[in-house]
Parts: sequence; structure tokens; C-alpha cells
Amino acid sequence: MSSTYILTLSCKDVRGIVAAVTGFLAEHYGFIIESAQFGDASTGQFFLRIEFSSGEMTPPEDIFKKRFHDEVAQRFAMQWQLHDKARKPRVVIMVSRHGHCLNDLLHRHLTKTLPVEIPAIISNHPDFKEVVEWQRIPFYHLPMEQGGKQAQEAKVWDVFTRHGGDTLVLARYMQILSPELCAKLDGRAINIHHSFLPSFKGAKPYTQAFDRGVKIIGATAHYVTPDLDEGPIIEQEVARVDHTFKPDDLEAAGRDIECAVLARALKYHIERRVLVNGCKTVVFK
Amino acid sequence: MSSTYILTLSCKDVRGIVAAVTGFLAEHYGFIIESAQFGDASTGQFFLRIEFSSGEMTPPEDIFKKRFHDEVAQRFAMQWQLHDKARKPRVVIMVSRHGHCLNDLLHRHLTKTLPVEIPAIISNHPDFKEVVEWQRIPFYHLPMEQGGKQAQEAKVWDVFTRHGGDTLVLARYMQILSPELCAKLDGRAINIHHSFLPSFKGAKPYTQAFDRGVKIIGATAHYVTPDLDEGPIIEQEVARVDHTFKPDDLEAAGRDIECAVLARALKYHIERRVLVNGCKTVVFK
Amino acid sequence: MSSTYILTLSCKDVRGIVAAVTGFLAEHYGFIIESAQFGDASTGQFFLRIEFSSGEMTPPEDIFKKRFHDEVAQRFAMQWQLHDKARKPRVVIMVSRHGHCLNDLLHRHLTKTLPVEIPAIISNHPDFKEVVEWQRIPFYHLPMEQGGKQAQEAKVWDVFTRHGGDTLVLARYMQILSPELCAKLDGRAINIHHSFLPSFKGAKPYTQAFDRGVKIIGATAHYVTPDLDEGPIIEQEVARVDHTFKPDDLEAAGRDIECAVLARALKYHIERRVLVNGCKTVVFK
Amino acid sequence: MSSTYILTLSCKDVRGIVAAVTGFLAEHYGFIIESAQFGDASTGQFFLRIEFSSGEMTPPEDIFKKRFHDEVAQRFAMQWQLHDKARKPRVVIMVSRHGHCLNDLLHRHLTKTLPVEIPAIISNHPDFKEVVEWQRIPFYHLPMEQGGKQAQEAKVWDVFTRHGGDTLVLARYMQILSPELCAKLDGRAINIHHSFLPSFKGAKPYTQAFDRGVKIIGATAHYVTPDLDEGPIIEQEVARVDHTFKPDDLEAAGRDIECAVLARALKYHIERRVLVNGCKTVVFK
Repeated sequence: MSSTYILTLSCKDVRGIVAAVTGFLAEHYGFIIESAQFGDASTGQFFLRIEFSSGEMTPPEDIFKKRFHDEVAQRFAMQWQLHDKARKPRVVIMVSRHGHCLNDLLHRHLTKTLPVEIPAIISNHPDFKEVVEWQRIPFYHLPMEQGGKQAQEAKVWDVFTRHGGDTLVLARYMQILSPELCAKLDGRAINIHHSFLPSFKGAKPYTQAFDRGVKIIGATAHYVTPDLDEGPIIEQEVARVDHTFKPDDLEAAGRDIECAVLARALKYHIERRVLVNGCKTVVFK
Repeated sequence: MSSTYILTLSCKDVRGIVAAVTGFLAEHYGFIIESAQFGDASTGQFFLRIEFSSGEMTPPEDIFKKRFHDEVAQRFAMQWQLHDKARKPRVVIMVSRHGHCLNDLLHRHLTKTLPVEIPAIISNHPDFKEVVEWQRIPFYHLPMEQGGKQAQEAKVWDVFTRHGGDTLVLARYMQILSPELCAKLDGRAINIHHSFLPSFKGAKPYTQAFDRGVKIIGATAHYVTPDLDEGPIIEQEVARVDHTFKPDDLEAAGRDIECAVLARALKYHIERRVLVNGCKTVVFK
Repeated sequence: MSSTYILTLSCKDVRGIVAAVTGFLAEHYGFIIESAQFGDASTGQFFLRIEFSSGEMTPPEDIFKKRFHDEVAQRFAMQWQLHDKARKPRVVIMVSRHGHCLNDLLHRHLTKTLPVEIPAIISNHPDFKEVVEWQRIPFYHLPMEQGGKQAQEAKVWDVFTRHGGDTLVLARYMQILSPELCAKLDGRAINIHHSFLPSFKGAKPYTQAFDRGVKIIGATAHYVTPDLDEGPIIEQEVARVDHTFKPDDLEAAGRDIECAVLARALKYHIERRVLVNGCKTVVFK
Repeated sequence: MSSTYILTLSCKDVRGIVAAVTGFLAEHYGFIIESAQFGDASTGQFFLRIEFSSGEMTPPEDIFKKRFHDEVAQRFAMQWQLHDKARKPRVVIMVSRHGHCLNDLLHRHLTKTLPVEIPAIISNHPDFKEVVEWQRIPFYHLPMEQGGKQAQEAKVWDVFTRHGGDTLVLARYMQILSPELCAKLDGRAINIHHSFLPSFKGAKPYTQAFDRGVKIIGATAHYVTPDLDEGPIIEQEVARVDHTFKPDDLEAAGRDIECAVLARALKYHIERRVLVNGCKTVVFK
């Protein structure tokens, strides 16, 4: 029976990588559905993403992986991952008091347009308990008590791991994660920042945008790093505004693009289209 | 015979301004073609732009202006200007070694799609002398010699005034104007900045954009002020890029939006659609 | 006590309209918050929208309206409407089996970012009964039985009027309204068409777009008229696609812009920013 | 010495194609710089584009091509082409009386931002003779005389072939090519259509757009086919407009996007990024 897999890898860019990988796949009865590659001329690093279906004679996943490691990956010192596309990623969502991104993701989940499991929602406020539980998803209210960041984050980590979380999405979660939690979630936590980074870092970006009188605003989805607002950018989107927009209007216009850009970034991420390249990303759309 | 005029004004926002202005126009046989207004709730300032045609019985321009001053403007302590649309603005263009914006403006001028006079081009490099003179426009090569900024700017000012310049366009002129020259050209000099301000201020914005790994780049047209890159923004535009764009590719993608955004900003400016509002602009598109 | 009103009007374009209207407002202690006008040179028709606040000495609404009629509207043979901004429009939504636009509007309603009442939802399918009723909104399942279009539309009209509906939104309601119902709802019913009209009229626009190999898809919000897909366009939006998009992918990409464009069109409509101009619209954004 | 080549191919989609091609390249000391592929699930056709540099031990081009044919292409019944990137494509441009696209391409050529040779310009009008010849490019005025389409096209073909033309660009050439000439230029002639196809086919698209009251206009670059406006679309772009745009304003707004979209389509074409797929295109950006 045929399965579909996504193979992603990166290594030093030398001659023969694609030949070795695709040769291995052909020998093991893999049929390439989609393939994309990128050689970063400025760093000499190579990135590859291949989506392929297995054939009747393709060996079982564990044997396939062992052989790939021995015959290909080791030779090029590759960092690589193989994902069975049938296995839905488990995405835990954190939110504070702005629910538009949460609602958008829940609707995509409900209507099966975003193929993920959402095993849990975590919030430092109780506001969305009812709407989340109505969808039969466990809701964890983990408030941030005075001086209790470490304790709160321990609970967050416990919920995340207990529910088998793969990816953590900060859907307008207005708290900074500690360097320790960032490290544990490296490359697995996505934040939506409500500005067109690197413009308007920090607090109240829409007020900053109002004060500067910009004619276009934006939103940015990026991987979470300890250095706030500096994580590798996955996706951005913009919207045109004018002098009549007050900060509230900018915020309203921003909400739509925040939803769109976070949903797109998460889709790219779960489809393994995003490969981190230092402080940047390669996105194979 | 009928002429078309553009009236722009700003004053403290109180009841009765529009009634007074439009009442005055109606009494003087003016027919409103286009009108736009804006009250800035954060400052209490009011802005109005009216395009109107005069009738057979409208008094001559000087009498009209005197009466408007006495009967309307004084009462509301207005700052105002009246422009005869038939009079083409005289736009002097400065450029260094990147000619795409210059070429774009010259082509719009040549094909009469931008209704301006271009009485002179000034450059600190001789590169575009031939192409400019072919179009029968005087070209002034005013190089920036060591320590000679003051002398060079005196020559720039001389060319600008001698040719009756109304507006100065810095079409990728890679020199900072002195505070003195900025002051003289206040609200009359437009710069194109090759980034999506306030992102990537300063030098080499495309290299900065490459290093940060942004997914969208931009360009910004703004009024020139002594505080570089902080002038009131008139117009912005963006273009989508991805991980495959090297700094050169970003620059190439940027060139197209630089041309478009500068041409649009200049069009708004010469049509008197842009009213400066502190460090921001009101743009009545 | 001060109220905010929106005055919209249209009439033959002649000299003195704005002076008469704003003069009337000034005399009645109205303070203009926002104003926009348009003279259609191709038809000679004039359109005006003014948002103003009343003062302590402004007469009550009924007297104000009578005087406006007698002193201004009659003189210019105006079609006009006055709306108290405090009164929330009552929007009835119809949907079939694609719930993304419905969900988007319900979320905007729930989070108070779209200031409307939603007194009822009507569907020819039962799918969204549970989610709608969870939000404590009455849900009417009015199936389309063989030959029963007239009977079904009578029920639709009954629900609409019984709930005091002002505006009917077809949020992916996959049935054509009869000319009779269209006439009753003239200028009050908004449809979202899932293509960039006039491209791909009729059924299955995403399949048509796939077959033609377009590089950009779109969505269109328009007023409902008996001539399907020919109603006055209120708003459009587009999204970039490429050769890898299958019809399903086009549909998924389209869903996001359908939500955005319908929400924007409805916002313009309820803020009385849309004035119908023959088979076109004037939209004072 | 190393050269850079672009290999494009298409064939029936089966297992092992990429392995065979990249294996062949590796054996012949080719280093892959960029690679993109697409399998069209609806037709079973496979498309591949690989940019690679040769090594010191890579055989000369003719031997390389013969071996590729014998060892790879024949086996999969491929249609394929190999291009030496150092060889600049020769692009002949045709124009009528709207010069904005011509000017844009000439400027890109002059400033070396579009790596092509422009050996000749052909027009049915004499308008641009002076500006073209100033750039030292031969200008052919080939008017369309009554009943003389066949004779005129013979001259066009003569100019095209005599100057070694690879690609013919119709930069607002307002004449339909005969089926015979279309056949000779199959996949090598690009037209810019001044509408967002398939909207507003035929004449005067901006007037059609005005009459319909659309809120977004567009432009389309496509391969020329006998069936006018139905050729495979390479690229499209749009611009937002509103009720204030008269047909002339739509045309002015359209000019900028026509320039941008034609330049982009031509760039993709000369970089061999466009593969025709029936009445559609695969564009490997």
C-alpha cells in the first residue's frame, strides 16, 4: 500500500546531492510528487524538500530510514527528517485576549481546511474557555501570577508534552517566553507579530504606525526566539491604509492580515515547507 | 471663460468651515468638481481640498483671492493656497547614478501622462547627460567636491530658482541635503527612499533586507526634512520576495516599485492632494 | 445631547449643492465629521455623503428632516436619507454549505468589530444549525423543495421582515433569488461571488480559473439583481496563484479573500458609504 | 572553464526521471544551481527545469547533448532543450502608438537589468523612430496597408529572421497576427493584453472596465496564438481603482502594470522558466 512522505534535508552544497537522494528514492520505488531545492550562495548551505509516494516494494519506514542514513545522509553529513503525511501534526495554541487568530485557526480546523489536530488551547485569561470547550477541545487557563513566570511556563510545557504537541502557535499570546522555553521549542513555536517587522518592534505597533503616518501596515509570522521580534520570518502580509485611519482602525485592518499570515505560515510549517537557515528561513511554497 | 482652480486650506476644526467656503464659491459662480476634507481628531486640525471651475461671472483671480481672504480665510485663521490648474508645475529633478526613476519620470513627461514642466536636471555625476540633453532638457553636472557641500548646494539652489522650480524631486540622489536647503524647500522637495520606512533606515536597505530575511520589500516617497528618513510619508508600495532573492535581485525588484511610488507621490503633490500634517501627511486621492 | 448622523444624497449636478447642504447643517448646529462627494461626468449625477454630529440646539430628528426636505432637498430634487449612527443595522444572513463567510461575519459580530445586529440566519441546509444557535441566534432551515422556490422565498421574506431586517447578506447562498425577491430587496441584498467578475461568471468559477490557467484569482461582492453576476460591484479582492494550484487549492485560496471582501463590502454598506449609480457603485471609503 | 546551462524538459510523469537526469549531471561533473519540477496530476505530464554549471571535466556541449539524448531523453521520450546562459536571447519588439512598454523594455536593456539583445524594433507607425534610433537600434516602419496584411507580415518575418530573432514581443502592437505567423512563432511570441483576462477580451478593455464599474483592473502577458486573447497566460498583475477613475485614468493606471507584467513575463521567458502546458503555462519562478 502506498503512503506519502515528506523528506527535508540540509547540508553543505556539493555536487551530486540531488542525484544521490533521487537515485536512492528511485531504487526504493519512490515516486516524486513535488521537489524543491535551494543553494544559499552566501553560506554554501543546501536545502531540499521532496514529497514522494512509496510503492508496493518500498521497504517499511524504519528500514527505509536506516538505509537512507547509511547510504546517503551520512555521506553528505545531512540534517534530515522524514514525515509520513498521513500523520496529522498536533498543534497547541496559546492566546491572550485577542481571539481573531484563534477563531480563524479553529474554523479552519473545524472545516478540515487545515489538516492538524488541536489537542489543547492554553490562555493566561479565561475569556475563550466557553467557545473552545464548545468545540470539544480542552482549554487550560494558566494565568501569569506575580513572579510566577517559571511556574506558569512549567505548566505550559506540561500541557504541551502531555498532549503530544508538535508545534506551539502563539496566536496573539501577549507574553514573552523565557529563553529556556524558547530553546525547548526551537523551530517548533510560531508567533504572529502585529507589525511589518522590522518596523515597529515592541509594544503597540499600531500606535507606532499611527504616529509615523505610514501608508501601509503589515503583520509577520516568525519562529519564536529569545531575542524578541528577531526570530526567522516565515511569512508577511500588508494592507493599505491612509490618513483617516485612527489606531483602532489600523488594528481592525491589521486583524485580517494577522489571521491570513498566521494561517499561511502554519500551513507552510506543517507541510514541512519551512527550513530554518540561520536567522532566516527557506520557504518552499 | 472658465478656468479650473484647486483650493487647499487648513485651520482649527470648528463648525461652519465647509459652509463658509462652499457658500463663498457658490456666490462667486464656482462649480465644485471634486472636494475632500479631513478633521484630525488627535490634533483638532481641519484640512480641505476643493477643485472647482469658475464661471463667466467669477471675478478675476486677484479679486477672488482678496475677497476669499477677507470674507472667509481670516475668520477661521486659515492657511490656504489657490492654484490655477492650467499652470504646469515646474519640477527640477536630481539624480546620482541610478537612472530608473529619472527615466520613468522623463517618459511620463514625454508622453504627457504627467502634466509638469521639467526645466532642468541636476546630477552629481555626468552619466545621464546624453539621455537628458537628447530630450532637450538642460543638464547640470554639479559634482560634490571634498568639503564643497555648501558651494555645491548654492549652485543647486541657483539652478532651481533660475529655472523657476516649484518642486524638487530627489530621484535616487544619493546625497543628504543640508538643513539650510531643506528649510528653503520645506514641503516642496520629495525623496524616494528605497525601503519600506521605517524599516531599514540609512544606507544599503536592500542589503539590510537580505540580512533580515524579510518576505516583502518596499519603497517610500516622503518630503525631505533635515532628519533623514523621517520626513512626512506621502506614498509607499511593496513587492513580495523570497529566500532566492540575492541583494541584487531585491534591488531589481525594488526598482519597479521605486518608479511607481515616486511617480504616484509626485502626481499627488502637483495635483495639490498632499497636505502636510506635522510629521505626517493627509493625501486626498 | 449630541448624536451622530449620516446624510447621503444624490441629485443632478449643479452649482450650489454643497453650499446649500453645509449651510443648512451649520445653521442647525451640525458639526461635519466626514464628507465625501462625487460628480459623475458621464451622467451628470452628483453624490454626497456627510457624517455630522448634532449640537445641543439642533432640532429633533423629525423637525430636522422636514426642514431639510423643505429648504434643501426639494430645491435640488434630491434622493436622500438620514441615518442615526447609534441605530445598529439588522443584517440577516443566508448560507448554504460553505460556512467560511458566515463564520467570519459571526466572529466579527461576536467581537464587536462589525457593529450590526444579526437577528436571524437562514439556510437551505441544516449544517450550521448548532454553531449558530450556540451563539444564541435563531436559525431557520428553509430547504428548497422541488418546485417550491416561491413558497421557500415567501418564508425567507417572512423571516427577514419579522426580524426587522435591513440588509440581506448571501454569504455563499448557492441559490438564485427570484426577480420578485430581488426587487423587494433592491439595494439591500449583498452577494459574494467567488470569482473576479466579470471573469468566470456562472457555476464553478474555480474550475473555470483552473482550466484557463490564470495567475491571479479573485472574489467580488455586489448588490443582488435579477441579472445574475451583473449587479453593481461594491468591492473586489485578488490573490496570486500558480500552476501548482489544483481546483481545491484555488478554492482554499479563494475562501480567505471571499471572507475579506464580503466583510469589507458589508462594512461600507452599513456605514452608508455605498451609493448605487446605475449598474455601478460610488463607494466613499 | 565553467559555463552555466539551463536544461528544460517535459515528458510523461513516471518514476525515476529526476534520478536519471541528476545522475547524468553528476556523472558529467554538473553542479546544480537551481532546480524546479512539476507533475500535472490532471494530465500526467512532468516538467523539469535545472540550472547547472559545468565542471572542468564536463564534455563539450555537442557531446554532452548527444549523450543526454542517448542515455536519458530517449528513454523517457522527453522534449528537452539545453541553453547556454552566456548566450543572450535576441528579442525583436513590435509596437504601435502606445510607447510605455517599449520605453520600459529599452530602459531595462540600456541599464543592463534585462539581459537580452534587441536587434530590431518594428512598428506599423513611425512615431518611435527617433527615440529608437537614438539608442542605435534599427527601426523598421512597416505600415499596414489596405489588404496588405500578408505582405506586411512577410516583411516582419524577414526582419525577425534576418536579425536572428529568438523571441518576438508585442509591446502594445495593436494588430492581430495571422494564424500562419502565429504558427511560425509558436511559444516564442509574447503579447501584453491590457486587461485582466479572461475579463474584457477584445477591443477597448479600459472602456469595458469603466462601463462595468470594476474595482480592480489588470494586465495579462501571454503567448500569442491564433485564437486572440486565449493564449497561455504567463503573468498577470492588477491595480485597485475606484468610482472616480474615468476611462483615461484607468488607462493611465493600467500602463504601469502593463510595463511591469510584460517585463516580468519576458524575464521568465528568456530565463527559460516558462514551459507551455497545453493552453496553460508552468512558470518556475
